[in-house]
Amino acid sequence: MKDVVAGIDIGGTNTVFGLVEKTGSIIAEDRLMTTDYPEINNYVSALVAAINRLIETKSGIKLAGIGIGAPNANYHRGTIELAPNLAWKGIVPIAEYIRKEIDVPIAITNDAKAAAMGEMIFGGAKEMKNFIVFTLGTGLGSGIVINGRVLYGHTGFAGELGHTIIVPGGRDCGCGRQGCFETYGSASGLVRTVLNLLSEMKEESTLRDIPPSQLTSKKIADAAAKNDPVALEAMDYTAEMLAFGIANAVGFSSPEAVFLFGGLAQAGEVLFGPVREYVDQMVMPIFKGTVKILPSGIPESNAAVLGAAALAWNELK
Amino acid sequence: MKDVVAGIDIGGTNTVFGLVEKTGSIIAEDRLMTTDYPEINNYVSALVAAINRLIETKSGIKLAGIGIGAPNANYHRGTIELAPNLAWKGIVPIAEYIRKEIDVPIAITNDAKAAAMGEMIFGGAKEMKNFIVFTLGTGLGSGIVINGRVLYGHTGFAGELGHTIIVPGGRDCGCGRQGCFETYGSASGLVRTVLNLLSEMKEESTLRDIPPSQLTSKKIADAAAKNDPVALEAMDYTAEMLAFGIANAVGFSSPEAVFLFGGLAQAGEVLFGPVREYVDQMVMPIFKGTVKILPSGIPESNAAVLGAAALAWNELK
Repeated sequence: MKDVVAGIDIGGTNTVFGLVEKTGSIIAEDRLMTTDYPEINNYVSALVAAINRLIETKSGIKLAGIGIGAPNANYHRGTIELAPNLAWKGIVPIAEYIRKEIDVPIAITNDAKAAAMGEMIFGGAKEMKNFIVFTLGTGLGSGIVINGRVLYGHTGFAGELGHTIIVPGGRDCGCGRQGCFETYGSASGLVRTVLNLLSEMKEESTLRDIPPSQLTSKKIADAAAKNDPVALEAMDYTAEMLAFGIANAVGFSSPEAVFLFGGLAQAGEVLFGPVREYVDQMVMPIFKGTVKILPSGIPESNAAVLGAAALAWNELK
Repeated sequence: MKDVVAGIDIGGTNTVFGLVEKTGSIIAEDRLMTTDYPEINNYVSALVAAINRLIETKSGIKLAGIGIGAPNANYHRGTIELAPNLAWKGIVPIAEYIRKEIDVPIAITNDAKAAAMGEMIFGGAKEMKNFIVFTLGTGLGSGIVINGRVLYGHTGFAGELGHTIIVPGGRDCGCGRQGCFETYGSASGLVRTVLNLLSEMKEESTLRDIPPSQLTSKKIADAAAKNDPVALEAMDYTAEMLAFGIANAVGFSSPEAVFLFGGLAQAGEVLFGPVREYVDQMVMPIFKGTVKILPSGIPESNAAVLGAAALAWNELK
């Protein structure tokens, strides 16, 4: 019997899960609609049934553990706490609920910490002890690894770099404060920067033809690739703000590498080039040349399941 | 025979050292002038001789280890590297030099990391696994403890929170950049804030009678205690800037406590009160009420030797 783990990514809309070997190979995968189950008990039953079905499709395997990535997950307590985008209110002891049905070790963490675990076990950080993964999507998440361990801190919520304030009194943030790193350095921060530049700059731009509600980091990156002046300026400003947040993080934990992951990171060299230059300008002299700025080593399509699976494999070590 | 360690604090002017029991009791202490020994070999010989003399004054003890606090110390390599305030240039393998003369385990770190170690072994953080010590003197140092271990990072230089930028384009910093936390939150930052406020405010102030070169955080704290309006405003602004740096650090490592240590921290409640209020306003909602802001639990006069000794005791564990 070959050991596999289940990697489960719980999102506001979908739950994606797969059976993953120790090598990182996903041997079976499925999904269900999170929104179909407003009652947590029904959700757990459906999820457990679906995982058991996946296992039955394969022979010669044994489930050794379960890893879960979920918003507002508390690793220490095995709970999902006050997650704004999920129907289950309050503090949900989901690890305990699942363990009642499947008796294997279960660990849970948030998506950025799962991404860091995935990078460490299956991705570009296999040989690294100190690194940071930034997930640049609608929000800006961060998973920090120190001495080979994901940083949780006293509360379990450490690593909220997206909500360190980099512009006092700056852009309104969903967390209720202003000027958070997330409002400048995420994919949605890039969109906000374009809107601001469209007000400031007089240059022609194809971005003027897109309704603001339909602007995406992908469309902006495509425009930048065609030398659209507003898109290029927005990329440069976003790179500068990302570098600012990265440089301050380097002064904190002195990582060997910083991985950029998610929608905005797909922009590629038009983003990474200036980020590297700005980071090198902005860090303290003793940190110059000490930190690599890298794209994630995990394919975006598999990242959520692999990150959750990596968490499980790491617990089994 | 009772084990003791030697705690050595190497400063630009003085070197202070003592023999310290496991309980934190300093049983013998001495000092020498660092500036008397521009040659590192002569310095090491003099230091080793002085430590041996201290040991000879006591009976029934055995030296079990040596801990050293020094500027620009590299824990990983046992070196002092490019320290601007020391005569020894380049990379000095001081741990190796001392070990040739005294064959015991030797560890070296910088003063803020030694302060964190002292707080953990002998001070107010004995039961804590995650905390940060800020040393608020001429500079602003930080020693970060995560999962019970001082944070060194990939380079050994992690924990440079004094040089995270909190005001882009702000005050000139000794590190060659602008707007570093140190230029606002240290004792010398407080002095700079008073000078700025003396230009902005019209109120009378006893601080107008002191030449700027002789202004100290002690004099400003004394004036604040007498309700001097400029001193009070300067304390409040400094508290706000300190809180800003602390709030961002909380978002990074989610410590159980933040200890303030050094000259500026001596100001007491006139500083701690507003710092606590501002931190509570500034942190993300999930961190509200999770972090204690505390004065150091170690007497300032013994802190340097005890911090270095704590480093040694920790290595022996």
